[in-house]
Amino acid sequence: MNLLTPGSHRAGSLVDDEAVVTALLRVEVAWAVALSEVGAATAAQSEAIAKAVVDWRPDLAALITETEAAGNPVVPLVRALRSAVADPAARALVHRGLTSQDVLDTALILVARDALRRIRTDLVTTAQTLGHLAREHGDSVMPGRTLTQYAVPITFGLKAAQWLAGVLDALELATDSLTGLPVQCGGAAGTLALTNELTDDPSAAVAAFARALELADPGVPWHTTRTAVTRLGHALVTVCDALGVIAADVLVLSRPEIAEVREGAVEGRGGSSTMPHKRNPVLSVLMRSAALQAPLLGAQLHLAAAQAVDERPDGAWHSEWNALRTLLELTVTAAAQSAELIAGLEVDVDAMAHHVAEAADDLLAERGSGGEPSTYLGSAGAFTDRVLDRLTATLEKESR
Amino acid sequence: MNLLTPGSHRAGSLVDDEAVVTALLRVEVAWAVALSEVGAATAAQSEAIAKAVVDWRPDLAALITETEAAGNPVVPLVRALRSAVADPAARALVHRGLTSQDVLDTALILVARDALRRIRTDLVTTAQTLGHLAREHGDSVMPGRTLTQYAVPITFGLKAAQWLAGVLDALELATDSLTGLPVQCGGAAGTLALTNELTDDPSAAVAAFARALELADPGVPWHTTRTAVTRLGHALVTVCDALGVIAADVLVLSRPEIAEVREGAVEGRGGSSTMPHKRNPVLSVLMRSAALQAPLLGAQLHLAAAQAVDERPDGAWHSEWNALRTLLELTVTAAAQSAELIAGLEVDVDAMAHHVAEAADDLLAERGSGGEPSTYLGSAGAFTDRVLDRLTATLEKESR
Amino acid sequence: MNLLTPGSHRAGSLVDDEAVVTALLRVEVAWAVALSEVGAATAAQSEAIAKAVVDWRPDLAALITETEAAGNPVVPLVRALRSAVADPAARALVHRGLTSQDVLDTALILVARDALRRIRTDLVTTAQTLGHLAREHGDSVMPGRTLTQYAVPITFGLKAAQWLAGVLDALELATDSLTGLPVQCGGAAGTLALTNELTDDPSAAVAAFARALELADPGVPWHTTRTAVTRLGHALVTVCDALGVIAADVLVLSRPEIAEVREGAVEGRGGSSTMPHKRNPVLSVLMRSAALQAPLLGAQLHLAAAQAVDERPDGAWHSEWNALRTLLELTVTAAAQSAELIAGLEVDVDAMAHHVAEAADDLLAERGSGGEPSTYLGSAGAFTDRVLDRLTATLEKESR
Amino acid sequence: MNLLTPGSHRAGSLVDDEAVVTALLRVEVAWAVALSEVGAATAAQSEAIAKAVVDWRPDLAALITETEAAGNPVVPLVRALRSAVADPAARALVHRGLTSQDVLDTALILVARDALRRIRTDLVTTAQTLGHLAREHGDSVMPGRTLTQYAVPITFGLKAAQWLAGVLDALELATDSLTGLPVQCGGAAGTLALTNELTDDPSAAVAAFARALELADPGVPWHTTRTAVTRLGHALVTVCDALGVIAADVLVLSRPEIAEVREGAVEGRGGSSTMPHKRNPVLSVLMRSAALQAPLLGAQLHLAAAQAVDERPDGAWHSEWNALRTLLELTVTAAAQSAELIAGLEVDVDAMAHHVAEAADDLLAERGSGGEPSTYLGSAGAFTDRVLDRLTATLEKESR
Repeated sequence: MNLLTPGSHRAGSLVDDEAVVTALLRVEVAWAVALSEVGAATAAQSEAIAKAVVDWRPDLAALITETEAAGNPVVPLVRALRSAVADPAARALVHRGLTSQDVLDTALILVARDALRRIRTDLVTTAQTLGHLAREHGDSVMPGRTLTQYAVPITFGLKAAQWLAGVLDALELATDSLTGLPVQCGGAAGTLALTNELTDDPSAAVAAFARALELADPGVPWHTTRTAVTRLGHALVTVCDALGVIAADVLVLSRPEIAEVREGAVEGRGGSSTMPHKRNPVLSVLMRSAALQAPLLGAQLHLAAAQAVDERPDGAWHSEWNALRTLLELTVTAAAQSAELIAGLEVDVDAMAHHVAEAADDLLAERGSGGEPSTYLGSAGAFTDRVLDRLTATLEKESR
Repeated sequence: MNLLTPGSHRAGSLVDDEAVVTALLRVEVAWAVALSEVGAATAAQSEAIAKAVVDWRPDLAALITETEAAGNPVVPLVRALRSAVADPAARALVHRGLTSQDVLDTALILVARDALRRIRTDLVTTAQTLGHLAREHGDSVMPGRTLTQYAVPITFGLKAAQWLAGVLDALELATDSLTGLPVQCGGAAGTLALTNELTDDPSAAVAAFARALELADPGVPWHTTRTAVTRLGHALVTVCDALGVIAADVLVLSRPEIAEVREGAVEGRGGSSTMPHKRNPVLSVLMRSAALQAPLLGAQLHLAAAQAVDERPDGAWHSEWNALRTLLELTVTAAAQSAELIAGLEVDVDAMAHHVAEAADDLLAERGSGGEPSTYLGSAGAFTDRVLDRLTATLEKESR
Repeated sequence: MNLLTPGSHRAGSLVDDEAVVTALLRVEVAWAVALSEVGAATAAQSEAIAKAVVDWRPDLAALITETEAAGNPVVPLVRALRSAVADPAARALVHRGLTSQDVLDTALILVARDALRRIRTDLVTTAQTLGHLAREHGDSVMPGRTLTQYAVPITFGLKAAQWLAGVLDALELATDSLTGLPVQCGGAAGTLALTNELTDDPSAAVAAFARALELADPGVPWHTTRTAVTRLGHALVTVCDALGVIAADVLVLSRPEIAEVREGAVEGRGGSSTMPHKRNPVLSVLMRSAALQAPLLGAQLHLAAAQAVDERPDGAWHSEWNALRTLLELTVTAAAQSAELIAGLEVDVDAMAHHVAEAADDLLAERGSGGEPSTYLGSAGAFTDRVLDRLTATLEKESR
Repeated sequence: MNLLTPGSHRAGSLVDDEAVVTALLRVEVAWAVALSEVGAATAAQSEAIAKAVVDWRPDLAALITETEAAGNPVVPLVRALRSAVADPAARALVHRGLTSQDVLDTALILVARDALRRIRTDLVTTAQTLGHLAREHGDSVMPGRTLTQYAVPITFGLKAAQWLAGVLDALELATDSLTGLPVQCGGAAGTLALTNELTDDPSAAVAAFARALELADPGVPWHTTRTAVTRLGHALVTVCDALGVIAADVLVLSRPEIAEVREGAVEGRGGSSTMPHKRNPVLSVLMRSAALQAPLLGAQLHLAAAQAVDERPDGAWHSEWNALRTLLELTVTAAAQSAELIAGLEVDVDAMAHHVAEAADDLLAERGSGGEPSTYLGSAGAFTDRVLDRLTATLEKESR
């Protein structure tokens, strides 16, 4: 959470440095468990490592400073962790067989999973509330607008349904992203060479490692095959895209000259530092800001993926970490904001009707004959229903 | 194809302006067919439109010039097409019920499909050849390199398998992308209002439209829900990512001081304008160049998606077109180059062995005892086999 | 010019493949001239090369195809040019001492110069017309809008002045960019080694080369120091930024519910493919689309700059070319569109007055007392005057 | 500073949330001073505000949480600050006349200035040390490499000089960026309406405000004309570009098969978590990582600039803040790392000579005759001297 990303307190504990350290330690413990499961460590040794972590957190500021010398936080953390393990034999097994990238990649996957779960929860809420709006406003005729100008009439129900379609696309990708999130486990150059010295069954060690973290065993290391990361990125950006569309529409429709919707009134929100009367559409503004940032963060992940040279890369990998974390923070924040935005959204059906009446001629120009705009809605209802059916199917799947 | 994208002649006919015009016209004809299937046009009218297109192509330069006034190429093309249809009743049915975005979105989907099919073909070839390399070089020990320095030994078979893993990820996404490619069909503001005036069964019209183009019927228009486009983009960028990794490795490994691999010799390729002896790794250079460009083009599509305001947006949509086309061109080109690169790649096993022997101490430092680097390969063979098994499964699926 | 960049016919002849080929040939001729000036070639040889170019253009399609083998268009073009020079001694001097990058970099600088000159002309026109608007509308009170909501009143004169401030910033950068545009001249690895064999005064050769093209002599080659390119990119993106702001405002203010401005009516422009009454703000839409694309194209140039490895890079350089050209094309197009947009912009002072009257309470809330919005304009006039003074100073400098 | 940006402890206190809060408060105090200078506040009131800030810092966590409701941190900070000012009349003058964007924009300019000063200092050190390298290695012949292959010989002095040329370009831009850094001062909608109520000479207030902060008075507000921000961004990215080039070269040249340079040995740096012998080129890796991230962060600023709609924008502005801060942090970090990298760089002249001897035929192929590579260096020395002369001129300017 940071001061320059308003709303990021919503994501704070999920992706901050503490969360990363916790995840890193969890990964080291899981590896100790895995070693003990394949007989490369005793249960006592594995427990000694696990126990050391329970009562101990490193000095974060020192850790950050020491991170530079190794180029990543794992080396100094492992050093510190070792010194927290009293038993020398157990101590020697800390991190044994892994490389830094195994630990950091897996930890960031854990952090991403927690964030994605939160995102999914908020998207489900947003989707449900959008479903209500779509149902409620099937007869709320409003002007369709294209290239900023009046086109033919639509309903606000259809607009909500289109927002919902985007959210369902995003939810689907977010859900898919949670499937098969892999551990990273390859050792120094992706061959598990040292682990092969420790056990006859290195595959079993990887499987146990994955099991301990409830992640998937990818079969082969992915130090330089970053599809798991770019896929995550694509899902997160797609979430922000969907929320960006909602935000863009709310921002237009809540302009005072249009005033067809309005963000819900919340004590103290949307105030101006100089104009006491003002009620700014703050959630939409912040969601739009997130949507403007997400695509470049996603591109950063692809750029890193495209330059993953050698067995472990010389800078491309390093350029992923902060971009992924920032993207997670923005998306968690925006998803939470969207749930609140939609839940509180005030819809002014009268304003819509007023615009429709005033602009009836334009809205019906395509038809070439007069009549009521409400009789020229085409398949608006059918399209709305289809999206609602999809919502129902999605929610059923969720509740299983 | 253009002079500043070397190799783009490989993609030329697939994505150029002619291809776009052909696709646009194909879409208009498909819609005429759809109208006749639901009884909104006679078979004769639909055939008259189809026939007009057979013997006719618009003046491309004039079309480009006229495109600005409407903001897109569909308006002037429809005008020109109408004038090519003799029968007035048929003429009146050209484009009837559609909006420009329906036609352009669908046409670009058609162009993308053709490009993706080509890409898939080339990726399959690349994958097969990588499979040969992986199999052939299971015992070709070479130094593993991480952060540019020697790590533990690997085999070139494993390296090829890792390249292959990336290509298979990309191929999977490319294949998925070909599934469910949708028509766009919503009319002026996404309600099919006018089509509802023409037929009692507008859904049947959309279904017929989709069938005529062998595309999917998405159920609802997606004028402002651009997931279909960003998904395409993600697949294309992922292809370039995978090829970028191969290129980056080949570029490193073909440095004269390393010289473990070399691009195949082809008469006239890789020559320098001043140094006759030189054999530049041209295909890798160009693939790397594509991989550096693709992420930003993919981000452009997401940026457009995130700002799709109103019922049809005021610039965001327009910013998609050229980015998508450029991305398609780069990816088709790079995929074709990769097939050729891998087919011709020269692997110098002796150079690898030489480096391994020279650096044995470093390569075995982790192990802490001496011995032969070839005995410290860990799971290299097992990992290679797993990727090869995945290849076999993929190829079987392909051949079905 | 291309079908998917509406308006690009405005830039067509400036940046297309023909323009690049013309520039490449012009560079080769300039080098021949330079060689003759330092006595490394005879005047007759230099003239023979120049004459060969007068009556000759290569087959563009063949050139594009051959470009891949060398990785750039210079190698095949030089080969073709040589075969067009009859005299063997002259032929041997074609390109002698240069490397491909010298020629292509310099040619793209020439293309960029032509484009920038056009851009400057259009920006000057835009600035002048904005000056008229700012002067004319110093008393046209309208609502100030912040975060989409009414804030305090402004004048349309101030809005035009703010647009103008952005355009003047852009014009300044565009003008600066034209200063010191450098030739590239380093030979194979940036040492001019071969040129040193041809003449005792290689510096004089570079100086003559620069003089022949009316470019600057940068003193040292910049094969891997790409500041000249990123600086160009920054200037171009800044132009698009300034035009994007205008477009964004025009799009908001020409919404039918606001209708304070409107793009000028032009026969056939802004029409819809289905709604005959519609007048879409097409120029603004296209300018906005350009402004959405330019930042990523500028980033592409920086990315290339940041990875310029060795004496000439292995893909980063190649990733610049098409991005630069696309950015030039978009900017030329958008600048021309802006000149037309501002010249034709219709300002509805009554609509502004109406909104101000209706929203007077909100617009004056900050003041805390009633009165007339027109009495709460603060420094609007003074700020407008300052920008106008800057315009005057700029135009004076221009006319010198 | 954060765990996922190794080395960011070098920048920590410069750009973190505390620094932003300090800058925000400094801006509010400067405004109080300005109000008192024009007689809109008494000296006592202005001092009361200044004094409140001396002994007081807000609760940062609470501030972050409250930031969302207003959409920016200024609103809650002003509220908190007011409650820290005992005198009611003074309290009422806190922030009076400003808008949030005035305060945040100006504060971020202050933060950027501090960061840029640090960057300049480090770049000057880097430049000086590169000057030593360039001078020292004027006769250290090494292979020139292009497209990864041997080209003609160069000297390491020339390579250092080319690095230096990039650093001097960057330093020039960084220095320019420090010139004319503006305050933002426009009030609610950029008219200073409320300030005009407080004083007859609002221009004097702005001038005093600027003077108090030692910033420039820009003459007009720039709420929607973001050239000052994008210009900063361009300078910062250009710094990272220059450092990226150095990093890329060091990474290539320190590969064990090439081993012509090596990062200086520092106790504990470059260690591997599994391979005790390893000495990774950590500084270069991290500088390369920064160079891969900077271009997209710069693009983010341009994107925001291009969409600055209305009198203050609805999300575009918000998307700037974190991108700018991240870019500042990365650049401060990378510049500090570069100073250390170059100071400690170990150059292996023997390795260079060995490669040159081995590859002499290739390196001289262009010349077409045998001889010594050291006799085919062309203008390498002259070019080196020119860059060194430029360094001297720059350092003289600095020392003035």
